[in-house]
Amino acid sequence: MKHIEGGICAVRGIRANGIKQGKNGLAIMVADARQPVTSGVFTRNKVIAAPLIITREALSKGELKAIIANSGCANAFTGKKGIEDAKWMARLLAEKLKCSPEEIGVASTGVIGRYLDKAWLSGHFDEVYDSISGSKEASSASARAIMTTDTTIKEVAVELDNGVRIAGISKGSGMIEPNMGTMLAFLFTDAALSRKALDACLKKAVDKSFNMIVVDGDTSTNDMALLTATGYNECDEKTFQEGLDHVCISLAKMIAKDGEGATRLIEVRVSGAGTEADAKAAAKAIVRSPLVKTAIYGKDPNWGRVIAAAGYSGADVDQDRISLKFSGNNKEAILVDSGTIVEGKLEELKSIMESKEILIEVELGIGENRATAWGCDLTYDYVKINAMYTT
Amino acid sequence: MKHIEGGICAVRGIRANGIKQGKNGLAIMVADARQPVTSGVFTRNKVIAAPLIITREALSKGELKAIIANSGCANAFTGKKGIEDAKWMARLLAEKLKCSPEEIGVASTGVIGRYLDKAWLSGHFDEVYDSISGSKEASSASARAIMTTDTTIKEVAVELDNGVRIAGISKGSGMIEPNMGTMLAFLFTDAALSRKALDACLKKAVDKSFNMIVVDGDTSTNDMALLTATGYNECDEKTFQEGLDHVCISLAKMIAKDGEGATRLIEVRVSGAGTEADAKAAAKAIVRSPLVKTAIYGKDPNWGRVIAAAGYSGADVDQDRISLKFSGNNKEAILVDSGTIVEGKLEELKSIMESKEILIEVELGIGENRATAWGCDLTYDYVKINAMYTT
Repeated sequence: MKHIEGGICAVRGIRANGIKQGKNGLAIMVADARQPVTSGVFTRNKVIAAPLIITREALSKGELKAIIANSGCANAFTGKKGIEDAKWMARLLAEKLKCSPEEIGVASTGVIGRYLDKAWLSGHFDEVYDSISGSKEASSASARAIMTTDTTIKEVAVELDNGVRIAGISKGSGMIEPNMGTMLAFLFTDAALSRKALDACLKKAVDKSFNMIVVDGDTSTNDMALLTATGYNECDEKTFQEGLDHVCISLAKMIAKDGEGATRLIEVRVSGAGTEADAKAAAKAIVRSPLVKTAIYGKDPNWGRVIAAAGYSGADVDQDRISLKFSGNNKEAILVDSGTIVEGKLEELKSIMESKEILIEVELGIGENRATAWGCDLTYDYVKINAMYTT
Repeated sequence: MKHIEGGICAVRGIRANGIKQGKNGLAIMVADARQPVTSGVFTRNKVIAAPLIITREALSKGELKAIIANSGCANAFTGKKGIEDAKWMARLLAEKLKCSPEEIGVASTGVIGRYLDKAWLSGHFDEVYDSISGSKEASSASARAIMTTDTTIKEVAVELDNGVRIAGISKGSGMIEPNMGTMLAFLFTDAALSRKALDACLKKAVDKSFNMIVVDGDTSTNDMALLTATGYNECDEKTFQEGLDHVCISLAKMIAKDGEGATRLIEVRVSGAGTEADAKAAAKAIVRSPLVKTAIYGKDPNWGRVIAAAGYSGADVDQDRISLKFSGNNKEAILVDSGTIVEGKLEELKSIMESKEILIEVELGIGENRATAWGCDLTYDYVKINAMYTT
């Protein structure tokens, strides 16, 4: 597997474009497939946004030919009018492509409880549609168009050893604790796979990538990942899964690293858990803990907060068996060895905390299960960004 | 029921004292009871601190005559040495009172993963013990001694219509999401009640007070509430429960209001839930949400975040039935009426958000159950306090 240029447009059959203007953005992604197959996963928030409702319904009836996405307004908690507005977005693109609106996926991200700015969207639609292309700039433009508080575009493309390509763009910076669904992620491949295979691969990849990141612990109303296969290349499922996992984990880490106001990427690896669910629960509790996150921001060697978070995570934890290690800046510090505090390590820990990427390893000493989660520190800027989001 | 002066020393038989010096503090509370009965609830964090382990064991064998508590070091995750240190604290006081160390309750709060500063504690023990008294200053001194990042002492005393008195002191400002247990709270009454009655009353009161507050969502290793009855006055259980609920809710609100860095108290009332568990889950998810908390800090009328939090809380939620109201500064704004957005209310909402106490009412429109939770805003100062806690 190797990383390649071109973003989602590196995948055969994919053309895209986007525009971002102030808080508003519009992205269009079209799959000229041999035989399009699309799989989707959606937020488990019970307040689910209008575009997700119609896209989920479209996927239950057939396949998607294209995706239209806007930023600035989530079109969430907008009732029947929201559903009509989302269908209107689908129709805008369906008319151009001469297909049914039910072959269009719709996604939105932004403020909840506000109606869509249809004037802005219709005013810019032709400009975006008319310049759709397969260039790498077009992929970046679509990735930029879906940004909200994101500070960087998030795109990844890989080519597997068998020539199959898998690529994706994603957005997400705040309101990040995907729950079975994920943030906005649009994934594409030229592999030829059935819907059933695609569904299975996407679910597995999402469970170990987007579902293992936390910025603030708020699960969005608009989380959605769509994976479209254009079907030009044969690919066995195992090879495809490896590639898809890599793409999804890369995008998930980009989201965690670009968490609102973040200065550091935190990776937490929990091993020795009694069950896989326990490993995941402990890893996510640690990256979710505001106290762990603020300590890392302040380079405060207050490692006891990691232990406390594992303790309340719901995972089976025996304090006499825990081991704890921090790594970063090519240094490591073992703070706890099988339940015993290793003293005299606080200065070393402070220096590790200078690193932009910090690895926390927790060995529970109970079983054989492991999980990895990613998050970021909690900073003044997170507060600032979210204290003034709509104003 | 009326509020009275004197803190915990207003309860017949209770004498106390405390000292606070930098980060270290020591408090002693003695119950000269007709027949002492003590009930306790403890954190459900699986990493449970040493003093809680020995106090829980003491309560399983008999009653407590007195409590010794320190601040500055949590004596949590300290293994066998931690247990020995906690027993040493109990012995210090037992020797003076000429009782068994198993008749002494021990509590600690502060940094996790550090050993107790025995030199400081033994150096100040006599000074504190020798000045124990039943004065109101003594109650305040003990409340002050257990503070960490708290900015105010937290004490309440009430006299019921039948003359029975109930009082308590508490501490807590960060690492606040008590789970079945609570923060440090020491409660006293002169009522004569059995252990069984006291246990039942304490559990009920804690479930609707300390277990309904969130500062940051981190559940401490050291949460504990002890309720000691000195037995001088007869009291029926129903009357006692009302008084105890009032004392516990008052202390819980003080903790929420004094959350680390907080500028505002947030009260969330959820009604119309399908089950009581749903009402509690929705109310706690809303006060826990970093996005709701930062919006309130910034007076950003981003009410959609409240709906999103209810949606991911796990409670049964139907977005077409939700109603939402904010109140504060003697104004109110209905933002959502049975699933429909009420437009033109954002300026009113901004002005409500100037209030120091903000009430958020969510009606789910599904059943008849209700719950109230309390929290605070998330501010720059929360980040500051926790980025430099041990350094």
